[in-house]
Amino acid sequence: MSLIVVGSVAYDGVETPHGKVDRMLGGAATYISLAAAYFTPVKLVGIVGEDFAREDVDLLASRQIGLEGLEQVPGKTFFWSGVYSADMNDRTTLCTDLNVFADFNPKLPDSYRCEPYLLLGNIQPALQKGVRAQMPRLSLAGGDTMNYWIKDFREELLETIAEWDFLLINDSEARMLSGEANLRRAAARILKMGPRTLVVKRGEYGAVLFHGDCHFMAPSYLLEDVFDPTGAGDCFAGGFAGYLAGQGVTPSNGSIDFAELRRAVIYGSVMGSFCCEKFGVDRFRNLTREEIDARFREFQTCTAF
Amino acid sequence: MSLIVVGSVAYDGVETPHGKVDRMLGGAATYISLAAAYFTPVKLVGIVGEDFAREDVDLLASRQIGLEGLEQVPGKTFFWSGVYSADMNDRTTLCTDLNVFADFNPKLPDSYRCEPYLLLGNIQPALQKGVRAQMPRLSLAGGDTMNYWIKDFREELLETIAEWDFLLINDSEARMLSGEANLRRAAARILKMGPRTLVVKRGEYGAVLFHGDCHFMAPSYLLEDVFDPTGAGDCFAGGFAGYLAGQGVTPSNGSIDFAELRRAVIYGSVMGSFCCEKFGVDRFRNLTREEIDARFREFQTCTAF
Repeated sequence: MSLIVVGSVAYDGVETPHGKVDRMLGGAATYISLAAAYFTPVKLVGIVGEDFAREDVDLLASRQIGLEGLEQVPGKTFFWSGVYSADMNDRTTLCTDLNVFADFNPKLPDSYRCEPYLLLGNIQPALQKGVRAQMPRLSLAGGDTMNYWIKDFREELLETIAEWDFLLINDSEARMLSGEANLRRAAARILKMGPRTLVVKRGEYGAVLFHGDCHFMAPSYLLEDVFDPTGAGDCFAGGFAGYLAGQGVTPSNGSIDFAELRRAVIYGSVMGSFCCEKFGVDRFRNLTREEIDARFREFQTCTAF
Repeated sequence: MSLIVVGSVAYDGVETPHGKVDRMLGGAATYISLAAAYFTPVKLVGIVGEDFAREDVDLLASRQIGLEGLEQVPGKTFFWSGVYSADMNDRTTLCTDLNVFADFNPKLPDSYRCEPYLLLGNIQPALQKGVRAQMPRLSLAGGDTMNYWIKDFREELLETIAEWDFLLINDSEARMLSGEANLRRAAARILKMGPRTLVVKRGEYGAVLFHGDCHFMAPSYLLEDVFDPTGAGDCFAGGFAGYLAGQGVTPSNGSIDFAELRRAVIYGSVMGSFCCEKFGVDRFRNLTREEIDARFREFQTCTAF
C-alpha cells in the first residue's frame, strides 16, 4: 500500500556558510519522496520541464518511487535559489522561477487513486483539495502549507485542512493560522479546524506533536555540521508520513495510535537531520535504513531519563 | 548536608504582557534558594540593605533556608527593573541600581564552610573563585555566568570555572564563551575548560546536558500562560543543583552519574516552568513537592517513545 506524494519537483541554487551549489535537484515532493521511500512504497505526483535531467529521474527510480504521475511538459522546471544566514536559521530567496510549475494541476493516474495514504506538499490549497477528492479510499491524509496561503487564501486553506487527518507546519505558521502566540493554545485552536493530529516543526529545536489532549515533544538531532538545511522540513514530513504508511496505521474513530505517532515524529526528525548533512538530496544517495534505525536509537538514548 | 547558594538578593520591577509589578522580591540567589529548598537544605549568602522587608526574610526562613550568610548593611537593596517583549523572548532593562550589592564580597560564616555543595549565581568571577576557596570539603561545585563576564573578564572567568564541576549557561553565552556557533562543538570546547558537566539552557526550547561524550536533551514544559519569565533560569539552576545535593551525588573520578544528571536537568526544567506561572517568586509561596513530582512525571509522559 503506497503513499501518494504531491508537490514541487525543482532545481535549486543554494548558498550556505559551507558552500554554494548553482543548480541541483530539489523541490518538496522530491525531498518528501526520497525520505518516505525508506519506509513505504511511494508514488510521486509532480511536474517538470524538458530540462529535467535523466540522472534525476534515475535517482528517484532507484528508490522505487513511482513516477507515472511525474508529468514532463514543454518549458523549464521550477527553479528556486536562496542564501542562508551565518547561523542558517534564516534564508533570503534570490530567485523564484515557477516555470512549468505555474500551471501545475495535479491529476492522479488511475493506478494511484485507490491508494490509502496521501501526503500533500506545500502547494495552493485548492489544488491540495482537488487531489484529496480524487482519492476515495484514503486511510490517512495530511500535508503542509505556508504563510502565504495562511494569509491570502485563508478560506480555501480552512476548507482544505478540514478534510485532513494531520497537518505539519512550523511554529510561526501555527501562530499565524491560529491567531494565538502561545503554542499550546495555538495547537488547541488548530485541532478544532479539522486535523486530529498537528505537528509543529521548530527547526533546530525539534518538533511538538499534538493529538487530542496529548502532546509529545521531540528534540532535533544535535548535528556537528549543518551543511544545507534545504528540504529538512520536507524530509521530516516524508519520514513522518512514510513511517505511518509503512506501519499500515489507520485511524480508529479519527484517532491514530499515539505511540505510533510519537515514533513517526522521531523518524521525521531523523530524516530531517540526515538531510542537513550534505547539500541538496546528496545524503540520500547512500543513506541506509540501518543508519536511520541507529539514529532513531540515538534519539532514545539522548532523551530517556 | 546543605547546598550553599551565593548571589544577588534584590527587588525587581517587572512588566510583561500579563501585567506590571513595581517592586517585588527577586535576585538570583533568592530564586535559586527557593527552588533548591524543595530538594535539600539550603544556606544562602547575599547582601541586602536596610529596606529589605521582614516579610521577605520570613518567606525565605519559612522554607528553612539558612540566612546566617545574608548580610544586612546600611543603604538600599539591589534594584533591577525591566520590560519584556510581546513573546517574552526578549527583555529590556530599564534600571539597574546595584546599591549595596556593588560592595558584595561574600564571606562565608564558619557554619557554611564545611558543606559539600556549592552553587554560585551570576556574580563577578573573582568573587565566585573567592567563595570556592573558602570551602575545603566540597563534593560538587558549579554555577552560572553571563555575557558581560565572558566578554570583559575572560581570564578571571576561565580561572574560576576551571575549578567547577558544572557550568550552567544559555546558548548564546555558550557560543560566546567557546567561539563556536555549533552547539555540539561549543560544548566540546567548554568541557575542556574544566567543568565535566555543561548545561546549556535554551529558554522555551528546553536544555541540553553535556557530560563527557554523552548528551541529553530536555524539552521545556509547554505552559499555556507564561506570566513572568524572570528568575526561570535561576530556578532551573536551583532545581538542578538542589536535586543533586538532595540525592547526595558525589563525582567519582570527576564524573557524575549520568542518570542522576538527567533527572536533575528535568527537575531544573520543572522548577523553571513553575517560576513562570506567576509574577516574581509568587508561585513558590504555595508550590508543593507533590506538584513538582507530578510535573516530573508529565515530562516523562510527553517525551517517552
